[in-house]
Amino acid sequence: MLKIDMHTHIIPKHLPDWSVKFGYGHFIHLDHHRPGYARMMQGDKFFREIEANCWDPQLRIDEYERYNTQVQVVCTIPVLFGYAAQPKDGLEMAMFLNDHIADLVARMPRHYVGLGTLPMQDVDLSIAELERCKNIGLKGIQIGSNINQQNLSESIFNPLWQAIEDLNMAVLVHPWEMMGQEEMRKYWLPWLVGMPAETARAICSLIFAGVMERFPGIRFNFAHAGGSFLPTLGRIEHGFHCRPDLVAIDNPINPREYVGKFWVDSATHDDQLFKYVLEMQGSKKITLGTDYPFPLGDLEVGKFIEEMGLEKNIVDDIFCNATLDWLQLPKSMFD
Amino acid sequence: MLKIDMHTHIIPKHLPDWSVKFGYGHFIHLDHHRPGYARMMQGDKFFREIEANCWDPQLRIDEYERYNTQVQVVCTIPVLFGYAAQPKDGLEMAMFLNDHIADLVARMPRHYVGLGTLPMQDVDLSIAELERCKNIGLKGIQIGSNINQQNLSESIFNPLWQAIEDLNMAVLVHPWEMMGQEEMRKYWLPWLVGMPAETARAICSLIFAGVMERFPGIRFNFAHAGGSFLPTLGRIEHGFHCRPDLVAIDNPINPREYVGKFWVDSATHDDQLFKYVLEMQGSKKITLGTDYPFPLGDLEVGKFIEEMGLEKNIVDDIFCNATLDWLQLPKSMFD
Repeated sequence: MLKIDMHTHIIPKHLPDWSVKFGYGHFIHLDHHRPGYARMMQGDKFFREIEANCWDPQLRIDEYERYNTQVQVVCTIPVLFGYAAQPKDGLEMAMFLNDHIADLVARMPRHYVGLGTLPMQDVDLSIAELERCKNIGLKGIQIGSNINQQNLSESIFNPLWQAIEDLNMAVLVHPWEMMGQEEMRKYWLPWLVGMPAETARAICSLIFAGVMERFPGIRFNFAHAGGSFLPTLGRIEHGFHCRPDLVAIDNPINPREYVGKFWVDSATHDDQLFKYVLEMQGSKKITLGTDYPFPLGDLEVGKFIEEMGLEKNIVDDIFCNATLDWLQLPKSMFD
Repeated sequence: MLKIDMHTHIIPKHLPDWSVKFGYGHFIHLDHHRPGYARMMQGDKFFREIEANCWDPQLRIDEYERYNTQVQVVCTIPVLFGYAAQPKDGLEMAMFLNDHIADLVARMPRHYVGLGTLPMQDVDLSIAELERCKNIGLKGIQIGSNINQQNLSESIFNPLWQAIEDLNMAVLVHPWEMMGQEEMRKYWLPWLVGMPAETARAICSLIFAGVMERFPGIRFNFAHAGGSFLPTLGRIEHGFHCRPDLVAIDNPINPREYVGKFWVDSATHDDQLFKYVLEMQGSKKITLGTDYPFPLGDLEVGKFIEEMGLEKNIVDDIFCNATLDWLQLPKSMFD
């Protein structure tokens, strides 16, 4: 059985020190302080220690063999989005990261599929880089759940949505810059509470602004099983019905109509929620996705799904068919 | 069958203009601009139009008769918490609102049970007002999901938790001052996305800080079926396991251990989520609660639960037994 993990993060082993290069900001750079590990630094501030599986393609393939997983869809780590940079600098960061992924997928096409990143702070530059991503062999792009706290509902993004639909590129929406993070630093709450809310914010923004309605060809996929969107849809739908003057101002269609039209990944860490999501989305709209190689990821690559006793065709959908459909790739690519 | 709605909001028909009285701030006052309606104003700014069922006890009883519901547990509207006031002014607001509810429940004890509000910006004043709430016949208190953006995990609240446990008062935690609200004003997202996240933030804070562990006698109930906490518990638990250095710093116990030790209300607006919550919590820890009289509430007072085909004893638990247990009231009170 083909197994594709469509939600993994990768970066180059060496990053420029963009803060020095650009002369401002606290962009991530790497301190390879001991073999097999590096410290991600924001200026002088320690952000996170990462391991070689963040940058070493062969090590990653070896780790995935343990879970019989042949293919990884790779994208950058959200902290490298660079949306806060000046536009031309954001473009430089995106191009650097995209070229790295394009090189990887060209060298190891049976093991890696690539998603690019865009300088979302500038829509024109994003469109140009989107076209370049397509030309260098990337199959889609990853974007943040908000763009410098602007929601994805903002009309400024419309030309980008149009370009994404025209170029037939897939989209992974990933939570970052979590709401409330300044006020709830303790207990990792931005990751545990803020991230699921961020993804719900993004899905609601795309539905209520009419983006999904006006650009039905865009194939959206949302990280972490769509965050808190699907479980709180009853409340969201009720809000839509009872206060259309607030909620249905840009799109008159019930948000529930969009369930099953987008994809979500499988990272629920929980059988019961997984069943709930499966019942709503159907197996053709859930893609095996882990958030590898980070500790909060499903690092046994869907083992909990294998152990749930689901029918083989359901598992097959989740482990490869749904992702092949999302990315519009033929299965034969990985034979 | 006795039916008790344990999550309803009420205010006096007339409120002082506290901003004028205190000489600062934008506290809610009421503008009775047309019969049967009032505008809640924050200074000169329109906040929300409310109807007479926000203040008229007999009208509320009449509305509840349609849904065969005899008893309403009442508390103030979170926008009246007054936590941002100077402590003595916050106490004055709380006393005014608590006296109003105490008078109501004394006059109509077979229809109303009261929860107080506390000036949470000052723990000593809160303890004093908590004692007074007990003495004037209130059965518990309602508190916000955060206190001026301080989390309920803060150790400053420990003496209050001790007093709540000692006085055997129930606690309803209600979302308010929603994370991210400044950046997502459109589409009612603070209510649809922020509120469920706020409640998850509150539950996580009370668990991870060890409040639930050290004060097992406190009977917590969380609005809106616990917000996004129960559906995202897989992620929260996984975070607890994979980064104990961040999450388990104040309490070594798996957050899943607390499921079923607190109560949640029934306001899911969705059969499927309700079943999910029922499977986790059990019927003895889900209390019929609607958020009446606001539009986002379950204004048919649990009708969706009646139509789900659940066993009678399950429905009986949810409609009255769980609430009687949470508030430690004898059923005979309402005969």
